Amino acid sequence: MKLFLDQAEVPLSNRGLAYGDGFFETMRFNQGVCSLINYHMARMCNTAHRLGYSFSKNDAVALSSALKEKIPKDSDQQIVKVTVTREAGGRGYRSIEGAESEVFVQCFPYQPSLSSKEIAAGVQVRVCDIKLAIQPALAGLKHLNRLENVIARNEWRDEKIFEGLLLDQNGLIVETTQSNIFFKVGERWLTPELNQAGVAGVMRGWLLDHEADLNQTFHVTTLSLDDLSKAQGCFICNSVLGVIPVQSILTSDEESVSFDTEAAFALSKQVNDLLV
Amino acid sequence: MKLFLDQAEVPLSNRGLAYGDGFFETMRFNQGVCSLINYHMARMCNTAHRLGYSFSKNDAVALSSALKEKIPKDSDQQIVKVTVTREAGGRGYRSIEGAESEVFVQCFPYQPSLSSKEIAAGVQVRVCDIKLAIQPALAGLKHLNRLENVIARNEWRDEKIFEGLLLDQNGLIVETTQSNIFFKVGERWLTPELNQAGVAGVMRGWLLDHEADLNQTFHVTTLSLDDLSKAQGCFICNSVLGVIPVQSILTSDEESVSFDTEAAFALSKQVNDLLV
Repeated sequence: MKLFLDQAEVPLSNRGLAYGDGFFETMRFNQGVCSLINYHMARMCNTAHRLGYSFSKNDAVALSSALKEKIPKDSDQQIVKVTVTREAGGRGYRSIEGAESEVFVQCFPYQPSLSSKEIAAGVQVRVCDIKLAIQPALAGLKHLNRLENVIARNEWRDEKIFEGLLLDQNGLIVETTQSNIFFKVGERWLTPELNQAGVAGVMRGWLLDHEADLNQTFHVTTLSLDDLSKAQGCFICNSVLGVIPVQSILTSDEESVSFDTEAAFALSKQVNDLLV
Repeated sequence: MKLFLDQAEVPLSNRGLAYGDGFFETMRFNQGVCSLINYHMARMCNTAHRLGYSFSKNDAVALSSALKEKIPKDSDQQIVKVTVTREAGGRGYRSIEGAESEVFVQCFPYQPSLSSKEIAAGVQVRVCDIKLAIQPALAGLKHLNRLENVIARNEWRDEKIFEGLLLDQNGLIVETTQSNIFFKVGERWLTPELNQAGVAGVMRGWLLDHEADLNQTFHVTTLSLDDLSKAQGCFICNSVLGVIPVQSILTSDEESVSFDTEAAFALSKQVNDLLV
């Protein structure tokens, strides 16, 4: 691992730029601590393994330590973006054998995009026109090939709409442009499988691991728009925002499905308490 | 358009790096002239239009002039890579309204990867394991989201194999990792439709437009591995290599389909003469 803690630029030859040959993590630090750091590091190791990058558990430990040192305990909330690209070289798409991973760190002050009142009320989501491609080789990974998300997020400018729901080419629900999604059906929270498309978020992973602590039941399954009518509640989640209740999903210009936000908001508070 | 003719780096905030939000062209210049420049520029305008970038015909004219000036007439063959990314800014995947296109130019001396003897003999191609995703919103475009190509090209290290054949998730033939592909069936050259996956190459486009000059018939259709047995000839093509005859395609570790290289080699010479 070549770690660049303060570098602001990459050469044009960088394979992340040239081919999207890389992956990234976006972590929230609160007073120098990222509660989900182990989940971020585990996902990095897993992504590296799947894409054939050299990024070992030791590299993850070294990176965690370096971030801990870089972000002071007395600092305000910060977003830390870690981008990993594959060492340049090789001919065209082919990478060099034994290529090192290049790890770039960026820090930004955290600016909450929602007030606590807005979170309690729940956000509005619309269904995006673009359908995600099916690609099992990349599904679940937070790689740098995000043009679908860019196209999806540019489908609307209405500030009242917070997120866009993404379906895959088969019409199955996958995620929103930058979050995972859960639906309350009966006593369980259902969330889409992500083995064909989508990003397996760190917050989603943490939730699935903490059923007992949260006194909830989560279930990974396949879901389509037809299932929305069965859902009483809905939330989106990611590692920066935590759990955000969804008030309604616009399925077309005229139609929408509304949800109770109570259960999702209660879960949101529970998660905040456990993760601070 | 913000044109960067000599910049060697981009900031980490560059959206091409962050999200693969961009596209590129790779052009071959011979003594200061790129015969396919109009095709490259037309593709850039088309890609920009489809992805919602601002890159007008005037921008294309300005870029062509700048490249002409930059690459001296007495220079050896050069490869010019032009990368276009969307101006940084906006929140996350969403781009800023009226974002400018940033155009980065890189030049490399051309190093032919095949001798004329190797071209005459034809190259070996293998069928890749990874299947390309179906994504009509991106099909045909030479965008920066090329992880599938990277994975495909890293499937083999055997130097005797020149290219990898890519099928889509439905098993249809699309292209090779960095070229388009044509098969001779009867009197016609058949090449895959690229409205579901793949890159619509500039050389492919030029060939389709010059049937009469070449005294050939080209036909765009759907093709699967089952069609290989019907093919007498095969070639791959791109704007750097021109037309390269294919000697055989390895469909598995034990099986391969062989082709006559005569017709493809004759076409290769014809194209070289017309395009010098």
